[in-house]
Amino acid sequence: MTKEVLVERMTWKEIEKAQLEEYIVGIVIGSTEQHGPHLPLCTDVYIPLGIAEKVASKVNMIIAPPITYGYYSQVRSGGGGEKFPGTTSLRSSTLVQLMTDVTEAFMKHGFKRFLILSGHYENSQLVAESVQEAMKSQSGDIRTLLVNYWELIPEEILNRVFGSDFPGWEIEHAGVAETSMMMALKPELVRNELIQDDTSTRRLAYDIIPPPTDIIPKSGIPWKASPATKEKGELLIRAAVDKIYEAINNDLTRE
Amino acid sequence: MTKEVLVERMTWKEIEKAQLEEYIVGIVIGSTEQHGPHLPLCTDVYIPLGIAEKVASKVNMIIAPPITYGYYSQVRSGGGGEKFPGTTSLRSSTLVQLMTDVTEAFMKHGFKRFLILSGHYENSQLVAESVQEAMKSQSGDIRTLLVNYWELIPEEILNRVFGSDFPGWEIEHAGVAETSMMMALKPELVRNELIQDDTSTRRLAYDIIPPPTDIIPKSGIPWKASPATKEKGELLIRAAVDKIYEAINNDLTRE
Amino acid sequence: MTKEVLVERMTWKEIEKAQLEEYIVGIVIGSTEQHGPHLPLCTDVYIPLGIAEKVASKVNMIIAPPITYGYYSQVRSGGGGEKFPGTTSLRSSTLVQLMTDVTEAFMKHGFKRFLILSGHYENSQLVAESVQEAMKSQSGDIRTLLVNYWELIPEEILNRVFGSDFPGWEIEHAGVAETSMMMALKPELVRNELIQDDTSTRRLAYDIIPPPTDIIPKSGIPWKASPATKEKGELLIRAAVDKIYEAINNDLTRE
Amino acid sequence: MTKEVLVERMTWKEIEKAQLEEYIVGIVIGSTEQHGPHLPLCTDVYIPLGIAEKVASKVNMIIAPPITYGYYSQVRSGGGGEKFPGTTSLRSSTLVQLMTDVTEAFMKHGFKRFLILSGHYENSQLVAESVQEAMKSQSGDIRTLLVNYWELIPEEILNRVFGSDFPGWEIEHAGVAETSMMMALKPELVRNELIQDDTSTRRLAYDIIPPPTDIIPKSGIPWKASPATKEKGELLIRAAVDKIYEAINNDLTRE
Amino acid sequence: MTKEVLVERMTWKEIEKAQLEEYIVGIVIGSTEQHGPHLPLCTDVYIPLGIAEKVASKVNMIIAPPITYGYYSQVRSGGGGEKFPGTTSLRSSTLVQLMTDVTEAFMKHGFKRFLILSGHYENSQLVAESVQEAMKSQSGDIRTLLVNYWELIPEEILNRVFGSDFPGWEIEHAGVAETSMMMALKPELVRNELIQDDTSTRRLAYDIIPPPTDIIPKSGIPWKASPATKEKGELLIRAAVDKIYEAINNDLTRE
Amino acid sequence: MTKEVLVERMTWKEIEKAQLEEYIVGIVIGSTEQHGPHLPLCTDVYIPLGIAEKVASKVNMIIAPPITYGYYSQVRSGGGGEKFPGTTSLRSSTLVQLMTDVTEAFMKHGFKRFLILSGHYENSQLVAESVQEAMKSQSGDIRTLLVNYWELIPEEILNRVFGSDFPGWEIEHAGVAETSMMMALKPELVRNELIQDDTSTRRLAYDIIPPPTDIIPKSGIPWKASPATKEKGELLIRAAVDKIYEAINNDLTRE
Repeated sequence: MTKEVLVERMTWKEIEKAQLEEYIVGIVIGSTEQHGPHLPLCTDVYIPLGIAEKVASKVNMIIAPPITYGYYSQVRSGGGGEKFPGTTSLRSSTLVQLMTDVTEAFMKHGFKRFLILSGHYENSQLVAESVQEAMKSQSGDIRTLLVNYWELIPEEILNRVFGSDFPGWEIEHAGVAETSMMMALKPELVRNELIQDDTSTRRLAYDIIPPPTDIIPKSGIPWKASPATKEKGELLIRAAVDKIYEAINNDLTRE
Repeated sequence: MTKEVLVERMTWKEIEKAQLEEYIVGIVIGSTEQHGPHLPLCTDVYIPLGIAEKVASKVNMIIAPPITYGYYSQVRSGGGGEKFPGTTSLRSSTLVQLMTDVTEAFMKHGFKRFLILSGHYENSQLVAESVQEAMKSQSGDIRTLLVNYWELIPEEILNRVFGSDFPGWEIEHAGVAETSMMMALKPELVRNELIQDDTSTRRLAYDIIPPPTDIIPKSGIPWKASPATKEKGELLIRAAVDKIYEAINNDLTRE
Repeated sequence: MTKEVLVERMTWKEIEKAQLEEYIVGIVIGSTEQHGPHLPLCTDVYIPLGIAEKVASKVNMIIAPPITYGYYSQVRSGGGGEKFPGTTSLRSSTLVQLMTDVTEAFMKHGFKRFLILSGHYENSQLVAESVQEAMKSQSGDIRTLLVNYWELIPEEILNRVFGSDFPGWEIEHAGVAETSMMMALKPELVRNELIQDDTSTRRLAYDIIPPPTDIIPKSGIPWKASPATKEKGELLIRAAVDKIYEAINNDLTRE
Repeated sequence: MTKEVLVERMTWKEIEKAQLEEYIVGIVIGSTEQHGPHLPLCTDVYIPLGIAEKVASKVNMIIAPPITYGYYSQVRSGGGGEKFPGTTSLRSSTLVQLMTDVTEAFMKHGFKRFLILSGHYENSQLVAESVQEAMKSQSGDIRTLLVNYWELIPEEILNRVFGSDFPGWEIEHAGVAETSMMMALKPELVRNELIQDDTSTRRLAYDIIPPPTDIIPKSGIPWKASPATKEKGELLIRAAVDKIYEAINNDLTRE
Repeated sequence: MTKEVLVERMTWKEIEKAQLEEYIVGIVIGSTEQHGPHLPLCTDVYIPLGIAEKVASKVNMIIAPPITYGYYSQVRSGGGGEKFPGTTSLRSSTLVQLMTDVTEAFMKHGFKRFLILSGHYENSQLVAESVQEAMKSQSGDIRTLLVNYWELIPEEILNRVFGSDFPGWEIEHAGVAETSMMMALKPELVRNELIQDDTSTRRLAYDIIPPPTDIIPKSGIPWKASPATKEKGELLIRAAVDKIYEAINNDLTRE
Repeated sequence: MTKEVLVERMTWKEIEKAQLEEYIVGIVIGSTEQHGPHLPLCTDVYIPLGIAEKVASKVNMIIAPPITYGYYSQVRSGGGGEKFPGTTSLRSSTLVQLMTDVTEAFMKHGFKRFLILSGHYENSQLVAESVQEAMKSQSGDIRTLLVNYWELIPEEILNRVFGSDFPGWEIEHAGVAETSMMMALKPELVRNELIQDDTSTRRLAYDIIPPPTDIIPKSGIPWKASPATKEKGELLIRAAVDKIYEAINNDLTRE
């Protein structure tokens, strides 16, 4: 039987024990954002949560109830903005307050090591601000790793997954990587028959507000999804898990 | 095969279709709060979510990713405050902003009927404020039901569940009702062997800040949990579902 | 001649003396909210202020200028919401900031014991949050009692006032209790000729936003006011004062 | 019998009638701030409230429950800052939110003419911002007069009150003018035996944060109070009332 | 060659050195606000910045990048409100947060002496609040002078500049003083051919919201600009610099 | 004689004319952030301002007073975080409010086309949120381009500037590009003798809070600055100007 690591399923007594044993608190933050016609809206939650659970099988870590809403989707980072039905995002001040409250609560309960795993690019800076804000009311040696899991994937793995065809992470939204990882983690949620390649009519190096329709892909997929396979997904996830494990050992739990 | 109703698992195309077909948006809001040594921290999410799913099988409704963090736990409403390890709550301003952002996003996508189902007493007023706030930027006939599911349970059912022994909902925290419903909905998360009856040394009709320990039950259970059974849970859930269904028909979908 | 206890009428020198003598600071918070055709809009201020003044004659306590505006009136707690002319309420964030600023100012002046007396149900949770917020900048043993005066009335008194006819406090708005207490405290403000019984066409166990008119009583009175008498009011007030005095001795001034 | 004009004492039916008859809403905002050893902390409320009541006897106006807490006391405008026991002030954001909520509520109830009467210099700019903020959600011809009552006193009256000895309003705090007006309005709250003249050791044309003690008068009186008389107070109040009446006729009620 | 004092032009190494040598941090805050047809919108920045640079040649002081946007322009303090094209102002909460963040950052870098020089009357109180707010997170002897430069001009200089014709600073907007100082500091930005005298049709001792056009001067100049000369400007600036130098010696750098 | 384009130097009459002639409003936002021992703290302001001025010579555009403070410096995007003396940054909520107030003010004055030019990577998302926020109170066809100038540099130019040695923009901080552009725009502010190459001991693909010193370069330069030349700077600036001009024609001023 596997050890329970999800805070939502644990009791307060179990959390108390985890705190006394100096567990890491893992906080997953994603988004509710369109991911093409074939992937679910919470793809940015499922992937880092799947990774976090694998990490938790290797280190002493509990995982807080995931933050399922993220910062506004940006047109150029793939999400295509707030117009797609179902995309549901937070103002910056909401996100900062929310992450501050959650992080600070665990700090007050005595936890001192945090791994924040984001599945949504737009969250990164605000999460960093939140952690700093939460630390203001605390003392002692509190340390946090803030990880965008895709940034840890080594080039060698990227080559194996994309061949010479890696378009850059900022356009890899609902594409090969995310589709593959969802095939590996949540195959029942991938609408295989709807996987497709797409792009916007124009790609720009700047933002237009409000965005004209020609800079947003009709399907929500800014590039290719069709080369996705479960094997590529497993490869990517394993690489992310290994790198996070390494980061924890190097920078979180070492004295 | 059952129809998918959870937004987190749906695609944007499916949400678009639901909006065109005038689906209700169900929003579940609970808490991450101690529920005794035998129930998980997100009990206040699991129960209304379970109820919402049953309601969604009877009416056209999708269910947004649940809000798993709620407003500060109050000593006298059973939660016992913020000191129990794992209890993780939000300031009022965070909760109002969060609920406003989420509700407003669905309104902007064209949804006009909302069912907000709370599993945590403390949330109620702030959720009402959030809906009003979200409506400020909208026009048209938008209507919301805000339900604390336990308030809908008819007296006749309470009598069958509690006999003559109903202590009042404000003290029914991690007690007979919640334990029974969790037995019916998520039996694998109920630590049966840890079910117990408890109480605080003193019960007061006012609040003390900071709360002295003698007004908080050691276990986190302010009253009895031991008479809980799965059958009582099913009875309570069925009653709640029926009453919500009735409320939707009377006050949400009727012209 | 009676000792002056109202801060608004006192000089800074007198406050300085009160602080040196370790007086309690009483903070009354009510609302400006419809109370039927027969009671004034600040009924929720007059009653707890009247009670506070009686308490102040028995213990060392000064009373800050009352907070006369409260949190949004809820339909189901009797006030009937924000539509009645004159009902003037605050957002949650306004109320929390206001109560935090006021409470923190007295803490900075060195006061360490607070009695917060609310006459408006909706305020309770937010006031608790405010006190916690104000304490963040302070150290030392600061203690606060937060009292909704009606929650202290013993059952025996309720029986004497209501007979077998007590409808529950949530519906007792501008009814027997409030009308009686106003008759005892501010008879000149009770329009005796307009006292009446009323109710809404429908009473619900959930909220509808925006509220349809049939769930709000036309007069603003959700139940009976006509059995009110000055004697019942005196009975209720005396009971509240006695219980608060007891609470202060047990939980505020005892070491 | 005089007509009731204080909202706190009126019923919702009476407010409804006032709105239908296009009454002005008067909002008094003051402070809870030291006013020397001889005047009460809410002097800045009592004076404008007294003036407002007199104005209300001449025009159709109701008076909202006064805002008894104001913006931070400034050393150089006479209040001497926040250190005097009992001085209890609000952050700018609290004051703006509070005044916005109150003003907007009356606008929502249909009132279109407002007279805001401040007794505390520091409030002025923030109150203007609040009114603008409240108007954002409204349409139609809404008009507000914002009056610092002392700014309306004509020079001729100043000469009669001060002779050649007028020190400027910024230093007239708890001095001849305020003491005289309190003698006229609330003689029972003036500690005659404690009236004195005082000043700070140094008077500066700039601010020092935190303020050194030598720029604050020990008594809280930055200049003279001893020449105060009830007659001077009556003269000042009559002048203010007349000028406000004139302003209302010229700029508030005229088409 | 002159020593660099503008932080925007300095390197971090130079700031580090300044901090170690206990330099004062000068913070200039002005506005972007109409100043008649002849003066630039940032007149309220150029003048205090010019003064600050002269002060910095006499004491150890660096000057932070100026805050070029200020609090809402008030009709009666000369700016004429927000309607003039180009007038660009901040809400109170924005200004307080902005000044708090900037001031607190320098405090965190170890600076302990601050001179805040405002060129815009409306900023004063909010800047004082910001400094207090920033100090909350700090300890040690931090001291700030907050100067409205015009308040330091001695009467003798006013007499030389205005003769018997000084209208009071509140109406001296884009008039003799500001025009003269701009002639001395930034002659290339003064449109000499457009200098004129003007006034509003009516001058009031109270505010009207929204302001009718007859209380605002058409040109934006509420009084006279034509007597301005470069010499008067130099006189005023020299007086301000001398007085600030004196204030720094008396109240900022002295033990 | 060149046309004046800087709002800070213009009069309200000139702004009025610009608005009537449908000028674009350019808003430059940078940072006050360490840029190595050789570049000034406001490098992120000087470069986009220099570019904006060149763009303004080709299109009808005025340039608002630059926002000289930006969002928190991120360790991995080159700035190295908030510890370097002089780095002075804003919370997200401050930046959003500030940019919203400034942008909204110009919208209220009737401007409908905006070019926001950022010199600091961290600002981008928050600026986009601010523009959306400002537009909420407006109607009509308002359009904004949001440009991070470096993102527009074509690969061909990068090759000419960096050869095969381009490290990626995220590490190009105070390096070849910024140093070269400052040599071209503000040579007097480049400390040539202090130009150097540097790097941190470790470079990570994730963030650590608080950052250990070995991931921050001692000098503040995360890569090479020594190959910088004025010619490279001119090349980069010309490319940016040309691309922005193109973007304006394509997406801002075209019907």
